[in-house]
Amino acid sequence: MSYTAPIKDMLFDIEHLADIAKVAQMPGLEEAGLETAQAVLEECARFNQDVIAPLNVEGDRNPSSFKDGQVTTTPGFKEAFAQYVAGGWQGLQHPTDFAGQGLPKTIGAACVEMLNSANMSFALCPLLTDGATEALLTAGSDELKAVYLEKLVSGQWTGTMNLTEPQAGSDLALVRSRAEPQPDGTYKVFGTKIFITYGEHDMAENIVHLVLARVSGAPEGVKGISLFVVPKFLVNKDGSLGARNDVHCVSIEHKLGIKASPTAVLQYGDHGGAIGYLVGEENRGLEYMFIMMNSARYAVGMQGIAIAERAYQHAVAYAKERVQSRPVDGSVKASAPIIHHPDVKRMLMTMRAYTEGCRAMAMTAAAAYDAAHHHPDADTRKQNEAFYEFLVPLVKGYSTEMSLEVASLGVQVHGGMGFIEETGAAQYLRDAKILTIYEGTTAIQANDLVGRKTARDGGQVGKAIAAQIEKTEAELAKRDSADAKAVAKRLTAARQAFIDVVGFVAGQTKASPNAVFAGSVPYLMLGGNLVAGWQLARSLLVAEDLAKAGTDVPFMKAKIATARFYAEHILNKAPGLRDSIVDGADSVTALALEAF
Amino acid sequence: MSYTAPIKDMLFDIEHLADIAKVAQMPGLEEAGLETAQAVLEECARFNQDVIAPLNVEGDRNPSSFKDGQVTTTPGFKEAFAQYVAGGWQGLQHPTDFAGQGLPKTIGAACVEMLNSANMSFALCPLLTDGATEALLTAGSDELKAVYLEKLVSGQWTGTMNLTEPQAGSDLALVRSRAEPQPDGTYKVFGTKIFITYGEHDMAENIVHLVLARVSGAPEGVKGISLFVVPKFLVNKDGSLGARNDVHCVSIEHKLGIKASPTAVLQYGDHGGAIGYLVGEENRGLEYMFIMMNSARYAVGMQGIAIAERAYQHAVAYAKERVQSRPVDGSVKASAPIIHHPDVKRMLMTMRAYTEGCRAMAMTAAAAYDAAHHHPDADTRKQNEAFYEFLVPLVKGYSTEMSLEVASLGVQVHGGMGFIEETGAAQYLRDAKILTIYEGTTAIQANDLVGRKTARDGGQVGKAIAAQIEKTEAELAKRDSADAKAVAKRLTAARQAFIDVVGFVAGQTKASPNAVFAGSVPYLMLGGNLVAGWQLARSLLVAEDLAKAGTDVPFMKAKIATARFYAEHILNKAPGLRDSIVDGADSVTALALEAF
Repeated sequence: MSYTAPIKDMLFDIEHLADIAKVAQMPGLEEAGLETAQAVLEECARFNQDVIAPLNVEGDRNPSSFKDGQVTTTPGFKEAFAQYVAGGWQGLQHPTDFAGQGLPKTIGAACVEMLNSANMSFALCPLLTDGATEALLTAGSDELKAVYLEKLVSGQWTGTMNLTEPQAGSDLALVRSRAEPQPDGTYKVFGTKIFITYGEHDMAENIVHLVLARVSGAPEGVKGISLFVVPKFLVNKDGSLGARNDVHCVSIEHKLGIKASPTAVLQYGDHGGAIGYLVGEENRGLEYMFIMMNSARYAVGMQGIAIAERAYQHAVAYAKERVQSRPVDGSVKASAPIIHHPDVKRMLMTMRAYTEGCRAMAMTAAAAYDAAHHHPDADTRKQNEAFYEFLVPLVKGYSTEMSLEVASLGVQVHGGMGFIEETGAAQYLRDAKILTIYEGTTAIQANDLVGRKTARDGGQVGKAIAAQIEKTEAELAKRDSADAKAVAKRLTAARQAFIDVVGFVAGQTKASPNAVFAGSVPYLMLGGNLVAGWQLARSLLVAEDLAKAGTDVPFMKAKIATARFYAEHILNKAPGLRDSIVDGADSVTALALEAF
Repeated sequence: MSYTAPIKDMLFDIEHLADIAKVAQMPGLEEAGLETAQAVLEECARFNQDVIAPLNVEGDRNPSSFKDGQVTTTPGFKEAFAQYVAGGWQGLQHPTDFAGQGLPKTIGAACVEMLNSANMSFALCPLLTDGATEALLTAGSDELKAVYLEKLVSGQWTGTMNLTEPQAGSDLALVRSRAEPQPDGTYKVFGTKIFITYGEHDMAENIVHLVLARVSGAPEGVKGISLFVVPKFLVNKDGSLGARNDVHCVSIEHKLGIKASPTAVLQYGDHGGAIGYLVGEENRGLEYMFIMMNSARYAVGMQGIAIAERAYQHAVAYAKERVQSRPVDGSVKASAPIIHHPDVKRMLMTMRAYTEGCRAMAMTAAAAYDAAHHHPDADTRKQNEAFYEFLVPLVKGYSTEMSLEVASLGVQVHGGMGFIEETGAAQYLRDAKILTIYEGTTAIQANDLVGRKTARDGGQVGKAIAAQIEKTEAELAKRDSADAKAVAKRLTAARQAFIDVVGFVAGQTKASPNAVFAGSVPYLMLGGNLVAGWQLARSLLVAEDLAKAGTDVPFMKAKIATARFYAEHILNKAPGLRDSIVDGADSVTALALEAF
């Protein structure tokens, strides 16, 4: 099944929701206007459609394999990765100081989506390299930066994140890996890390592991965790590769999906200790790791959007081709392609509306990220930072949960053929299931939303977002169209539900933590639903204007129809969620533990 | 992962919701009281827990395989099936005239659930045999009955349903297989059938295929389809097996789940014609097939409940064992088992409430089935028949859709371990995905609900159900408890939403078929949600009384908590669904076909 990048929709979001013209006025981003975006997206689409997408099915059928400490990736991956590196794609969003291209997230995010739509298993390697790059950029010494950053930004070497241990998943307080300081300033690292994505592979000449471990004598819990660089091969002074370090892959996992992406168990220090280099200061590892995680969480949200887009395209193609049964309205006298059947349309519209809504939310978040990092005004930077931070758990949590529903609908559109692996629809569902789990489960995202993003500031950012949404409602109210009115009605109801919940969370987290956290995931789902619906409402306003002006009328009409569908079939879930959260907290925790 | 049959919950439903005491007053069911139910369920639980459940994982890892026309099932399946046959389990619900046990569906349904919880891939063989048995009981000649029924009821031979062809899935008008009448009264059958569950296997000595085909010269469309028995081995006059018939398995599918269940492509008549025997009259095949389908649809609903139960048990066991993070309320000072975390409770409660709600709905439907077939009063039989018929698409459609959500939550509770196949949680999700597809997709169930079950009678049965629900609300209103009040509030809102939708469907199906069918699946989901929530509300009334009387107080308290959770977190989705259906129909079909 081929993939066609939704460039038009992406550029619509980049131009009208993310407002790239404003982004390109910020210092350092002057060349990142709409024309650049268009050129980059078109080139990126060609590469992903032609080189990366065809390997997706192959990766599922012929996954990475493990033998004698070595991982062999799917045939074709190594060559494709070489092309990826040669094209400079790894450095898209990274600083020009380290040979990156310095493009804004507003453009980079769309490229991340394309790569993941093309092949999520493949895309994980660059995604983890991005995380390692971010951590070193933020906290690495000049020496570490000099040795590692250009190689990571070019993609010549790849990166990993080593958090999880068998007893320590979401609970990093339980990390046991240890690091012993050496006289020369290095450390010897010992321990077992699991679930390490691309922890071992054959696509790059070196792998730069970023590893959480405790320095001997460090405090217990998360305040005693430090971050280390542990390269697979040590690096000589001249930058050439030296001795093999004492970190070894002992197995890879047999997984439900993303089978081509090797998930490694790594053993550190079994032969005397793996040589590691401290990143930043001792005991601040968690803080640095959060920088990587925040970047990765946004990217995982994009993975959700990406897999939803691919599943949608697959399902549309089948629905246009598969002939079954007469339409219920008698419009066709013989059996017709199933896209004529209302329920098939409902499923495809659901897939489409979710995908476009979450893309619009993510692109808006990307623009806020760029403003937070590049805007000349400090207050504007701060506001955008707060907005972006609020959106990260929504982009990650909501877009990935929706991707599960979309991928499942994608299978459903195919009927019995969807259950046959050769059809390809089932792979998206299997692949998508990891997205609500890794880089922090949906519950972990929701904890973040409740604790750091809502309770801490008394719900201020949440309320500020609601106030912005109210402005969009006022714009909608000025329109005559039935579409605008229908969207406004649902948006208002959803915003009011959201305000109630923000008030509940801000007010009750300290006094009734069980009640608030019982509704944390529904709160995240409500927030994501609202923000995505809001961005589609903004899209509708733009699309109505452009349609009136005669600009690409079919596209604008489709955007309007999609926004209205979202409002009437997805956004309208918000009041029910409010009731569950605010009125239904007690029944979540009422059952005695023994009764389960 | 072991399985423990939820006998207590099943018996609660059988006693208090299905009212088995009344069932046992009906002619022919006099011995089927609560004591019988308990004895049968306990024996059934032992057999499934000890013999069938341990083969579930093995079936996934070592699926049925195909070579040279033969299918070899998973090691252990053949022996287990022999024990299943020896135990008389196949005949549980079938007439004593053919060596069955003649038990009511009220008891049989619970046994079906257990078998499917234990091992859904295994259970499919008996499920299809049940369908073939039903068809022959209803429409077979005395001769066919004499030759086949005892063998099928005993399980010595197994049955299949052959509907689908490559071009004819849900659309049986497109069936092309043909049957040529022979001078001796038999037919020669030719054609290709796909997706034939247990169409070939090594667990029984003969396979009785029930096959849809067109007799030469029959009318086009569904009115020209006849039903035939085509045995794998012809049967001699003395009942012994004769020559191999001309039906051959040419391949089996590589599927997302239920891997141990062989899904065959069967080729009929490549070597001169497969000898077939007409069931009933020519051109009435679809009607007979619907008898099988209706029976099978209910059973597939039970499969949804069964897999949800198994997924729930798996998740609870993990949540009690896996230690991560401190509880948010500070009740435990160190990292605690994750079942202490509110969101894990929310997930487990969602799984539990869905499962118990759907089980309660299905058991109530089973009692109606028994009354429809055994009650001495014709009017009562008719009313129960109508109620059962209304519930079949809900039991099938809603219970299977919920099983997907439950199985997905089951993976989620396991975190990263859920994505590793060895954990076992992912298998339930992969297995469950077929349930919303086979025996008619959810959309096909919804078409049935809209067309035959609602529009045809102007919504009368739907409204009658709503009137019964109002009586339950009145009972709840008499109670003082906060639980009863909370449940009553949501039940009333859901019932009112349902009434609106029934009115919309009954009133608009002819005039605006696209608008009604755009909401057909949401209508089914609303109906299933309401009926399951209603049955849990009835359960709450019973449980409050019994708890007051001191009967098994912990169980009754758990039942009350589960009913309230369902009302506040699941049933409260009903008003949103109403809005989507009644107000949002246009936006489902607004997008131009070219815009997809």
